[in-house]
Amino acid sequence: MIKKMFVPKWTEVAPPKGSYRSVFKYGDPHTFKHPSAKWYEMIKEEFSMTDEDFRTKKDQGLGSVALNRPNALEAHHRERFEAIVGKENVTSDDYSRVKYALGKTSEEMMELRKGIVGKVADLVVHPRTKEDVQHIVAYCNENRVPVYAFGAGSSVNFGVRPEKGGISLVMSTHMNKVLEVNEANQTARVQPGLYGPAYEEALHRAPELFHTNQRFTCGHFPQSFEYSTVGGWIVTLGSGQASSYYGDACDLVISQEYVTPVGTFKTHDFPASATGPKVNDIMKGSEGTYGILVEATMKIYRYMPGNTRRFSFMFPTWDAAVNASREICQGEFGMPAIFRISDPEETERGLKLYGMPGFVDAFLKGKGYRPMQRCLCLGSAEGETAFTRNIERQVKKICKELGAISLTGYAAKKWEHTRFKEPYMREDLMDYGVVIDTLECSVKWDNLHAVYQGVREYIKSRPQTMCMTHASHFYPQGTNLYFIFLAKMDDLDEFRTFQRGIIDHINKCGGSLSHHHGIGRMIAPWIGAYLGQEQMAVLRALKRHFDPNNIMNPGGQMGLDLE
Amino acid sequence: MIKKMFVPKWTEVAPPKGSYRSVFKYGDPHTFKHPSAKWYEMIKEEFSMTDEDFRTKKDQGLGSVALNRPNALEAHHRERFEAIVGKENVTSDDYSRVKYALGKTSEEMMELRKGIVGKVADLVVHPRTKEDVQHIVAYCNENRVPVYAFGAGSSVNFGVRPEKGGISLVMSTHMNKVLEVNEANQTARVQPGLYGPAYEEALHRAPELFHTNQRFTCGHFPQSFEYSTVGGWIVTLGSGQASSYYGDACDLVISQEYVTPVGTFKTHDFPASATGPKVNDIMKGSEGTYGILVEATMKIYRYMPGNTRRFSFMFPTWDAAVNASREICQGEFGMPAIFRISDPEETERGLKLYGMPGFVDAFLKGKGYRPMQRCLCLGSAEGETAFTRNIERQVKKICKELGAISLTGYAAKKWEHTRFKEPYMREDLMDYGVVIDTLECSVKWDNLHAVYQGVREYIKSRPQTMCMTHASHFYPQGTNLYFIFLAKMDDLDEFRTFQRGIIDHINKCGGSLSHHHGIGRMIAPWIGAYLGQEQMAVLRALKRHFDPNNIMNPGGQMGLDLE
Repeated sequence: MIKKMFVPKWTEVAPPKGSYRSVFKYGDPHTFKHPSAKWYEMIKEEFSMTDEDFRTKKDQGLGSVALNRPNALEAHHRERFEAIVGKENVTSDDYSRVKYALGKTSEEMMELRKGIVGKVADLVVHPRTKEDVQHIVAYCNENRVPVYAFGAGSSVNFGVRPEKGGISLVMSTHMNKVLEVNEANQTARVQPGLYGPAYEEALHRAPELFHTNQRFTCGHFPQSFEYSTVGGWIVTLGSGQASSYYGDACDLVISQEYVTPVGTFKTHDFPASATGPKVNDIMKGSEGTYGILVEATMKIYRYMPGNTRRFSFMFPTWDAAVNASREICQGEFGMPAIFRISDPEETERGLKLYGMPGFVDAFLKGKGYRPMQRCLCLGSAEGETAFTRNIERQVKKICKELGAISLTGYAAKKWEHTRFKEPYMREDLMDYGVVIDTLECSVKWDNLHAVYQGVREYIKSRPQTMCMTHASHFYPQGTNLYFIFLAKMDDLDEFRTFQRGIIDHINKCGGSLSHHHGIGRMIAPWIGAYLGQEQMAVLRALKRHFDPNNIMNPGGQMGLDLE
Repeated sequence: MIKKMFVPKWTEVAPPKGSYRSVFKYGDPHTFKHPSAKWYEMIKEEFSMTDEDFRTKKDQGLGSVALNRPNALEAHHRERFEAIVGKENVTSDDYSRVKYALGKTSEEMMELRKGIVGKVADLVVHPRTKEDVQHIVAYCNENRVPVYAFGAGSSVNFGVRPEKGGISLVMSTHMNKVLEVNEANQTARVQPGLYGPAYEEALHRAPELFHTNQRFTCGHFPQSFEYSTVGGWIVTLGSGQASSYYGDACDLVISQEYVTPVGTFKTHDFPASATGPKVNDIMKGSEGTYGILVEATMKIYRYMPGNTRRFSFMFPTWDAAVNASREICQGEFGMPAIFRISDPEETERGLKLYGMPGFVDAFLKGKGYRPMQRCLCLGSAEGETAFTRNIERQVKKICKELGAISLTGYAAKKWEHTRFKEPYMREDLMDYGVVIDTLECSVKWDNLHAVYQGVREYIKSRPQTMCMTHASHFYPQGTNLYFIFLAKMDDLDEFRTFQRGIIDHINKCGGSLSHHHGIGRMIAPWIGAYLGQEQMAVLRALKRHFDPNNIMNPGGQMGLDLE
């Protein structure tokens, strides 16, 4: 009577060297995360698929990258770049040109699987120092060569796409160090190409590396933490998973140094001052269109992992979860570091993905926490020990008042273990024609439900489409909504139309166009109407000032050079 | 044997209507605060003065304001302004022109006492609505009429001085309302000319006025609270006395609406977003040079006065007080709302000003807290009850570890009672030729002592000059230094030279040029070198964009139109 379960042959080998797949595969080439057996069953059921559909992978992108595209940049330019950064730091092979032109959107992944490559730069240049960047930008400005800064390539909106050719400037190859940890000021001076893990490790090891007394943490842990850079966090206005306590990337930046076509400057590193509009603020979120970030002084925090308190709850309804969250944010007892609430659909599918013992489910149902109504909440508090204890106590009190049942810290701990691993699942699904993608926006407490319902209705109007939503970045004035959709969809045009429809509905329903992924080229068509012509004119005036020849990330980025 | 003490006849009557004194007198015309007997003795001793010097007041400014200056604005302009705002809202009498041209610097006060009046506007216009402002700015732009926004006139750097004539636009006459309290989002939508007390009272009475469940507080309490406006706080980047917890003015602003020569716009009111450089941030601190702030959406906080915890300490040294403060700011247990440390000189003179029972002094001396070494610290925690209790406990622990002795909450409570009253003493002293003035800057923890010593040395290099210093706005990365000097000085030129010398030394020693009073015209000569030409060019590019005809607060403001 034992039925042998069919398990798809999820990919377990690193992509071939030089292949399209090696470009689009998320994260470490040798790391994988597969859908659980329950998820596999759920996907088949939802999308009317059978085991048959999971026998043959299609469009895996295993072939070698081949461009067959001429290099539009004249040879003498290359010589000049080689003179600046050294021959070994300039490449123009097909693979480099493709690798450093792409982000991590589902659309790019679908294209690469079919061997379709969008715009690429003519040359890839790896600067070693800020002086290299100065020489490069000055030369490019004189010679009208477009410059596209590339950090780690985790952009989800074509933000690094070299729309006008020119050069990809790879900031993470050499300019990836922690330069200084200033214990008195609790700041770290870093290079923009510094990856998350290297940054965090250096701060943990500050006593050994920088002769400090304390150990520190950077406080910024986006899902892309392992494959994104500090510079990228700043110029795209990113948020980490612990932002509710530590602040968004923009809150962490004390000072920045930029190289622009009209000069290099470094902002003061006072914690506050009243000396006019803050140039430090003006540059945040400029997405490579004003200049190249070459150094940043960041706030850091004392590292006290022993004090962390984890909690999780099940709410009877989405309304109750939202109301409790607002109460927590406005309660004036400090903010949790991590805090997330999942809507009913995400809760149900999440329980399937991570597995929940049957008796727990039965218990919850018995208590009235019904599937497709109940909502999971999880989080943690960080900081001084009595401070975190009080946050846990207050959170518990508020959650219980709003009908939640405590699930202990177990779910939060479990989530933390896989918090950076979710994106890995994308390749497995797409190997069999199932796409998973995300879009997010900011909301205020008083329009959260309108945006949630409006966007969700649009996504669910497509038959056989899952839509999981959570809020994960909290403020006294509101939060974000993060929409994840899953569908059997392998037609590129259909995908584009559907996905752009989500952006459109976020905009129409009153959400912000982005909460923490920037604008890039994907959202650019909406930005003019969203900000209004007067505010677009402000951003364009700055653009004209910094970059009169439009060589910095030109071609649609942030909508600056769109009609 | 009872010696009858001489007490100067401190002024106890409101200044005559229409007099110079009525322009420069701080605050309520009928409110006074006199130096204590001990302070009077101290001043005589320090400045080698005798009772004789306090028998006759000089330059009291009791005469009526008289300009005898032509109105440079052609009559047809006046007609147009009258058509926009109504005849009753346009004045050009000498008194109005003077009143709405001046801030509250000691220099202006010294001048007015001698009947010297600097630049004034030709007309004073009181807009009623944002539409009025739109019509006025459009007309002024077309006709090249300079526009100077005036809130409540508490500027300490000539920020409202109509250097090029034109009109003074008084924002506080009509545009001074709380328009909406949004309980869900915990925001208040306000007009820029709203005074501190009216704002705070409306928030306290929100249940009655706006049908909310909660009562609220604005969290912003500068010393000028009673005589400054929300718009002024924002456009000059002010800080309140409870900023360490609630944030500086710039942190409180969710959204703003501006009228500029190139159009009107309102920024989005999301709590966070990643849609490019934030125009909301760009406008903060623009000091009337880019446009007129006509509405703002501000963060507000739950009002829970019953949870406030007050504390005060005496430290053995300034170093110990500074080190404890840093430890508190970096301790990750939440920040005190009010927190202040006074240097040895301020501590000693403060104890004299407020009076300390002899037995307490003897006790402290016995314990080794020696005059001119010991430093007073006081503060309070606000928020949820266990949160404030924990802050108090942590603060106590840290202060004791650094050698401080607790003085209970008494000193903090006493300070709170007179927190807005200090400026009143200025007139009494100046009546007898003694000037008191202040300058402040930001510092980082690692350059605090260098700035403190350098600036203090300069001030004390003048014989018979008191210098009291405190830090009162705290961040994990640093704090501010607030220098107060007192001297017998009635020569205007000497005052200017000496006072500008302080700015110069702040700059040379590495402090920021302003922590929370903006730049105005006073600091403008230093700002170019301070920011560097590249960053000045950014501010000027924005200026050219918003105000191509330079009609918005022209003539030196923020150094934008200085060479």
